[in-house]
Amino acid sequence: MADTPIPAPPEPAVTRLSLYLRHLEELRADGVVTISSTRIGSAVGCSAAQVRKDLGYFGQFGRRGVGYPVEDLAASLRHILGTHRLWPTALVGVGNLGSALLAYEGFKRRGFMISCAFDNDPQKIGRVINSVLIRDVAEFSSAVCERGIRLGIIAVGARTAQTVVDMMIRAGIEGILNFAPTQVRVPDTVVLYAEDLAIRLEQITYHLMRRGAAETSSSP
Amino acid sequence: MADTPIPAPPEPAVTRLSLYLRHLEELRADGVVTISSTRIGSAVGCSAAQVRKDLGYFGQFGRRGVGYPVEDLAASLRHILGTHRLWPTALVGVGNLGSALLAYEGFKRRGFMISCAFDNDPQKIGRVINSVLIRDVAEFSSAVCERGIRLGIIAVGARTAQTVVDMMIRAGIEGILNFAPTQVRVPDTVVLYAEDLAIRLEQITYHLMRRGAAETSSSP
Repeated sequence: MADTPIPAPPEPAVTRLSLYLRHLEELRADGVVTISSTRIGSAVGCSAAQVRKDLGYFGQFGRRGVGYPVEDLAASLRHILGTHRLWPTALVGVGNLGSALLAYEGFKRRGFMISCAFDNDPQKIGRVINSVLIRDVAEFSSAVCERGIRLGIIAVGARTAQTVVDMMIRAGIEGILNFAPTQVRVPDTVVLYAEDLAIRLEQITYHLMRRGAAETSSSP
Repeated sequence: MADTPIPAPPEPAVTRLSLYLRHLEELRADGVVTISSTRIGSAVGCSAAQVRKDLGYFGQFGRRGVGYPVEDLAASLRHILGTHRLWPTALVGVGNLGSALLAYEGFKRRGFMISCAFDNDPQKIGRVINSVLIRDVAEFSSAVCERGIRLGIIAVGARTAQTVVDMMIRAGIEGILNFAPTQVRVPDTVVLYAEDLAIRLEQITYHLMRRGAAETSSSP
């Protein structure tokens, strides 16, 4: 008999797992051994109830009145998120953004290693950035299959993004992170996320606008 | 008498406003005049009820049985998010990531214009990237005050991020987007968001892990 299927947690809960994990890793570096849901929540900006509910989707962690063991909970979250292992990742597009992603400390620290990179610019092909050889994009499929790479990052311009997505899918890539500022289409079998760097700025200006409105309405 | 205070919508609702706006702008480009909450929701991956609830925080839009007027709703969302106007923005750190941000089409299209950029590397100071002169970081305060800049983007390494944050706050910057892969502290008077580029990759691997588990448990 198959295992009872686990109910799918909502997407924001998955994002919060990443935030909880970051906080747990900081606590661990500071030598903290146990932590309460209240303190995890206040560190990431949500309620203790939310923390308990989110973790509840994935199992029974911690003990009432004692709290969560920092190291065990961090290890569990890494298993849930898949970052207990190393994910070799393929990058397409080695302009400024692609070069920055090749050097980004935040990936390496999380178990994501850009192990091959591709461009179609003859000036870039053959160069080495952060120990990664830039290959001709025509070699994408063979290089990715050879290394069993399942993750792809797109750092090309908006106009070529869909072509690159289609190429990645043909090569067997299962998860794609798209930095090109355009919407792309994938079949249901592929996990796609887009990183729209302007969204965070909009959240900031939203708060500045509200604050401005509050100051105006409270002035005499 | 002051206006009745507007209840603060939850943060995820604000993020969804950005997604709604992106979809509305695509519809407008396609010549669509009105749209239902169901169709907006299905485009951004949430329910019609969620769309109506999110928009309800900000006013009364659209008419029952008719839907939302695409252009008017887009204009309203831009006003709410503050992107109906241009936000001159200061960038600190012009390495690969900073250079990529200077060229990022997704900012310019949204009304964010990086109008001055700073570094402490003499090799970079004085260069011009995308029509922006790279200045000595020592000139930050005067350059920012002169231009009335309220937004700052941090694209330096993890170790210098807090120093740059402190400098920005002293210069009167009110909103900060931090790309350095480290946590920084700001007073309550400053709006801070961090862009952790690894979080989206973790969401992808989370789904790949779940899929792998589902395939294993359903195999004979």
